[in-house]
Amino acid sequence: MASLSAKSGAHQNFYADYVIQYSYASADPSRSSEELELLLRKLWEVGLQSEVRPGEDSNLLVFVRASRKKSLQRAIYQSRIRDWLHGVRSSEPEDESSAEPQTESERLRIINQMITLPREDGGAGITPKHGHWKNVTAVFPLHDQAKNKEYLTDWSKKTFLSEGDLDQIRDMFGESVGFYFAFLQSYFRFLLFPAAFGFSCWLLFGSFSTIYTIVNCLWGVVFIEYWKRQEEDLSCRWQTKGVSVVRPKRKQFKPEREVQDSITGEIRGVFPATTRLQRQLLQIPFALVSTVALGAIIATCFAIEIFISEIYNGPLKSYLVFIPTILLSALIPTMSGLLVSVATRLNDYENYETQTAYDTALTQKIFVINFITSYLPIFLTAFVYIPFASLIVPYLDVFHLTVRPFVSKEDATTARATFSINPDRLRKQVIYFTVTAQVVGFAMETIVPFLKQKFARQYKEYKKKQTGRINSGPESDDNDAPKSLYDDHEDEKKFLTRVRKEADLDDYNVTDDLREMCIQFGYLALFSPVWPLVPVSFLINNWVELRSDFFKIIVECKRPSPIRADTIGPWLDTLGFLSWVGSITSAALVYMFNTSTDGPSGEPSAIKGWALLLTIFFSEHLYLIVRYVVQAMMSKFEPHNVRRENSERYMVRKRYLESTLGARSSDDEEEIPAKDESMELSDITRKTLEDDARAWSSHGKDAEERFWMRQKGWREASKVGTSIIKSLAADADKKKHQ
Amino acid sequence: MASLSAKSGAHQNFYADYVIQYSYASADPSRSSEELELLLRKLWEVGLQSEVRPGEDSNLLVFVRASRKKSLQRAIYQSRIRDWLHGVRSSEPEDESSAEPQTESERLRIINQMITLPREDGGAGITPKHGHWKNVTAVFPLHDQAKNKEYLTDWSKKTFLSEGDLDQIRDMFGESVGFYFAFLQSYFRFLLFPAAFGFSCWLLFGSFSTIYTIVNCLWGVVFIEYWKRQEEDLSCRWQTKGVSVVRPKRKQFKPEREVQDSITGEIRGVFPATTRLQRQLLQIPFALVSTVALGAIIATCFAIEIFISEIYNGPLKSYLVFIPTILLSALIPTMSGLLVSVATRLNDYENYETQTAYDTALTQKIFVINFITSYLPIFLTAFVYIPFASLIVPYLDVFHLTVRPFVSKEDATTARATFSINPDRLRKQVIYFTVTAQVVGFAMETIVPFLKQKFARQYKEYKKKQTGRINSGPESDDNDAPKSLYDDHEDEKKFLTRVRKEADLDDYNVTDDLREMCIQFGYLALFSPVWPLVPVSFLINNWVELRSDFFKIIVECKRPSPIRADTIGPWLDTLGFLSWVGSITSAALVYMFNTSTDGPSGEPSAIKGWALLLTIFFSEHLYLIVRYVVQAMMSKFEPHNVRRENSERYMVRKRYLESTLGARSSDDEEEIPAKDESMELSDITRKTLEDDARAWSSHGKDAEERFWMRQKGWREASKVGTSIIKSLAADADKKKHQ
Repeated sequence: MASLSAKSGAHQNFYADYVIQYSYASADPSRSSEELELLLRKLWEVGLQSEVRPGEDSNLLVFVRASRKKSLQRAIYQSRIRDWLHGVRSSEPEDESSAEPQTESERLRIINQMITLPREDGGAGITPKHGHWKNVTAVFPLHDQAKNKEYLTDWSKKTFLSEGDLDQIRDMFGESVGFYFAFLQSYFRFLLFPAAFGFSCWLLFGSFSTIYTIVNCLWGVVFIEYWKRQEEDLSCRWQTKGVSVVRPKRKQFKPEREVQDSITGEIRGVFPATTRLQRQLLQIPFALVSTVALGAIIATCFAIEIFISEIYNGPLKSYLVFIPTILLSALIPTMSGLLVSVATRLNDYENYETQTAYDTALTQKIFVINFITSYLPIFLTAFVYIPFASLIVPYLDVFHLTVRPFVSKEDATTARATFSINPDRLRKQVIYFTVTAQVVGFAMETIVPFLKQKFARQYKEYKKKQTGRINSGPESDDNDAPKSLYDDHEDEKKFLTRVRKEADLDDYNVTDDLREMCIQFGYLALFSPVWPLVPVSFLINNWVELRSDFFKIIVECKRPSPIRADTIGPWLDTLGFLSWVGSITSAALVYMFNTSTDGPSGEPSAIKGWALLLTIFFSEHLYLIVRYVVQAMMSKFEPHNVRRENSERYMVRKRYLESTLGARSSDDEEEIPAKDESMELSDITRKTLEDDARAWSSHGKDAEERFWMRQKGWREASKVGTSIIKSLAADADKKKHQ
Repeated sequence: MASLSAKSGAHQNFYADYVIQYSYASADPSRSSEELELLLRKLWEVGLQSEVRPGEDSNLLVFVRASRKKSLQRAIYQSRIRDWLHGVRSSEPEDESSAEPQTESERLRIINQMITLPREDGGAGITPKHGHWKNVTAVFPLHDQAKNKEYLTDWSKKTFLSEGDLDQIRDMFGESVGFYFAFLQSYFRFLLFPAAFGFSCWLLFGSFSTIYTIVNCLWGVVFIEYWKRQEEDLSCRWQTKGVSVVRPKRKQFKPEREVQDSITGEIRGVFPATTRLQRQLLQIPFALVSTVALGAIIATCFAIEIFISEIYNGPLKSYLVFIPTILLSALIPTMSGLLVSVATRLNDYENYETQTAYDTALTQKIFVINFITSYLPIFLTAFVYIPFASLIVPYLDVFHLTVRPFVSKEDATTARATFSINPDRLRKQVIYFTVTAQVVGFAMETIVPFLKQKFARQYKEYKKKQTGRINSGPESDDNDAPKSLYDDHEDEKKFLTRVRKEADLDDYNVTDDLREMCIQFGYLALFSPVWPLVPVSFLINNWVELRSDFFKIIVECKRPSPIRADTIGPWLDTLGFLSWVGSITSAALVYMFNTSTDGPSGEPSAIKGWALLLTIFFSEHLYLIVRYVVQAMMSKFEPHNVRRENSERYMVRKRYLESTLGARSSDDEEEIPAKDESMELSDITRKTLEDDARAWSSHGKDAEERFWMRQKGWREASKVGTSIIKSLAADADKKKHQ
């Protein structure tokens, strides 16, 4: 069944493995021709077949197929040897002639390597958008539409994805995407418990329940540890354990100097870790600047909002309340964008050797920005506004000066006198971030791009029709008009139209989706005691999220080139960090607001500083102890696939050992009895032996050798021993009788 | 030179590799004889030569020598194969016939394995003091006296041990002892800096200096991270990386049931981790009971001491002050001993599979006891007595009731009125624990046992002389009398006397020495701000410690059987934990006492709870951040030996790869050009190609195949591409001209 549908998928795609998009818009025609010739020759040299077809907007589509079996086998073999050299594979790969891709994703990954790896590693050295190949705008495989459709329909009827489903995602899009879906699936499954428990707590105790907070923290710890083991399990199942060491160098890596390795003798570009460390120090001012810049925007908007919604009583209030929201939604993305571009440049400057290291470092930097934009507003409400509002609000006079021209003095004064903290604010804010923002995010991420794409395509086709009419006259104004533009063959028309559409799509970036999930986990860990229905909202959201992310990949993005991975990478640390911070914020929230459901009276004096800090201290250290215990406990259980792999590896070696040892040991067995020199000696006394030794001494043997000759074989030694034992027993008897 | 001295060492020891001490005191003579026979036969079966000599106190000494080269080689080969099976070795071991022990310690370890491993693993299955072999009281190698002396003289002249010296320790006593000395050496070297800095701070700022505290914490972090890398480096140097997985099962392990492994098909005893976890839960009440029991003793003695030394003014004061000290030194060891025995039984009950796991678990339990006895007294002074004394002291009235009969009422009242906190108490206590206690510890550990041993031996000899005189009459009352007792041969006399002496010595336990160092590190991390000369004291102490520990091993202990290790084990975590706790206590100490050098006024109100907690909060989190940064930084630098090992492993595989790939790739190179079908085609237009395709279509090829036939080879594809580019350029031109 599976191989049949795979064939039909390849069939639908005209057996094209990859499509290379070459843009000839920026260079002059003759240069473009030369580049194209070089491209095609390089592809041919590594053993790939190519066909050229016109694309949209001054692009050429180069279809690539690994038609020569031998070349593909060699590439597979080389890749496996490379794995083996780096210790990713434990066993030497089988012979080149029997190397077959085990999955669709391995095939695609190998062909991608054939296209992009540098010449010395056996590839064509085509680096999209970089250096000599900057006009190669994309290298992508084609979607397998039949399978895509099948899975989407299948999953929309299921609650949980099975292991097989995850394997299928991995087969189609590679391990890195597979890991994202596996994580999302595990997270979704784990959410069931806090959702049910949170719902019960919400019914029984309302907000800020201590029991919910404790269970929630504990759940976080268990989930993270579970996922760590799950990762290990999957990396064994997908055979990608330790794969990060095989990553090729980044093209953009600039070595400081070339060094000949003293042991391997290879010359490699080296960038000293110390220099990089110095450059990494720039992260500190970056983090500070990010915090200050974003913090200032958020705090200002927050202050304006409070002023307008809760103090200001003048005209236009119903319109003015939108000002801070508008300001926020205009300023935050701008500032974030600016900071992200700074972070990217910082990251480039840090000059990482591999793409993985580069991505990890960038992820960490962007996480700082995300952390501030996502959680700071709630932090401000919970830990600044509610406890200190009555101290801070008078200083909001600044805004009074601004509005003075529009509002009479009396209005303002009245307002201030009647000011009281809005205790519902915190809950509303948490609900906004965990429900509204999630829905909005879903819309922005999936629905809006889908509609945008649709309209853009319609507009394009309309425009093309227009141009087509001008060029080819009114007689071609039938249904096929936009397609016939490219002068396609009848039986390729449909296929080429689809490929042109796919070439026009965005790249899929799995990091963005992972980040979204981590930020979501953060809300749960940090603030869910405020409103225990948070996990319920996330549970529903994530069921949809999994399907919509898949939909996004297959409809709105180019098919991603498979990338191997054995982890979700830096996000795992992020989850751990958020859960840890959660143990602090949750405890603080519960201490501050548990007294009454409406929040504290608003006077900071009601909250005792030392008691708050003591609560945090105990909560955090309890958290750390529990985490230690859970880690110790979890480490005792070996995941299924890890155990299987270890056993299998052990068995392979053992079988080998037995085959080489078997014959040999049976040979040796016979000689040992022959050495038992004392076998025949029947009657030995200690005396006679000593006489022997004395006799030998005259033969010139040294004292040490004589020591070992007194007792010939174990039987003699045993006899001597027995005689010693008996003589002492006799002595003891004698003494007794005396 | 080295091999010569090794020979002379073996020569001194009469080439005896191991000595097995067999006690025939408890069983009747015939049973003993049978057991001895079995023992000797088993030894012979695994290929070991044996000689029996009488020992002291109803013991027999069985000298064991691996005289048959083939048996030793087989045992070495088997051990290496076992390593390889478990992934400790990366390469398959060379052939059996060329297997040679690389070091003295490997030779001894292998022979030890031949004696103790169970039959199915190729050993004689002799388990000292356990089961059938409970009369085998010891299995030990003999000291290499020449080398011992040489090293001791050599090191007493040196400040630092070189890497070579550490290698020599490892060659003699195995890796686990080697790791202890390497740790002690690294620790000593690292202490130089805080000693110098502490001394300067003591001169400039006195006690509780903020700068000293910060530097001290930072130093702790760096030291621990440095040692982690050092460990990795050493385990590569000594080729023991990952060796803990090869540990054989403990004899005492009781499997719950036998299970056949579904993959390997082997039957193994299984003890479920869940059952063990349940049993481990008993550690919680154990820790609580330990804390309460020891805490109560310490707190009571502490209270009595304060009462007597600072409140009580009655008669006999100068004698009474010793009461708490006497109580402490009597009660604490008793209670510790009791708790340790409970811990051991708990540990037995937890039923660990390997000795390593067992030792680790026991270490953790004993550490709880050590932590309380070592640090609680200072904790009490710093965080209870000094801040709260004026609140607590009135309650010491209880003791007044006790002393009432002896002291007049007036005395007591006067005393209480004049009570004031003794601010010097804390410093005195820290000095006591870090100087006096270290010196006392050194004496108790090294000098006292040495003297005790000497006297015991003299007493024994005196007694033997007495018995000897009775047995053999007055005529043998010359110098050789005690030796001639055993009827030894003239040329063995001296040797056997020495062996009997060694058999009488204690076993060396490296864990105790490691514990001592960790506890010492704890004082430095936790309390050194109180008295910045602490590291100076430790620096001096540890120079002596290293030499005296070596002296202890070679003079007061049996030579330890080499045990492989790749780490100092659970103590590493202990160091990290102590350093972490240090970040809390140091901050608290500095906050509480930094205001004046004499300590706080004694009123708890002077210390603000929230400020103290805030200080702790910031200090701890700063510590954690710094630790994270230092870890990240250190992980960038690969230790020398690790890098070398990785490179070598890589090279071995690469060379192998080149040798197998070389020929093959040169064969294939030739075929590729033959496939370039388009080479000869000189003039192709898109039109003609399409005609071809149409022609093929009539031949029944399907659309997909035809797609790939339109452009034959890369040259055609390139031409078609160029024509597309040019046509579009022409279009653009046309448009411009229109």
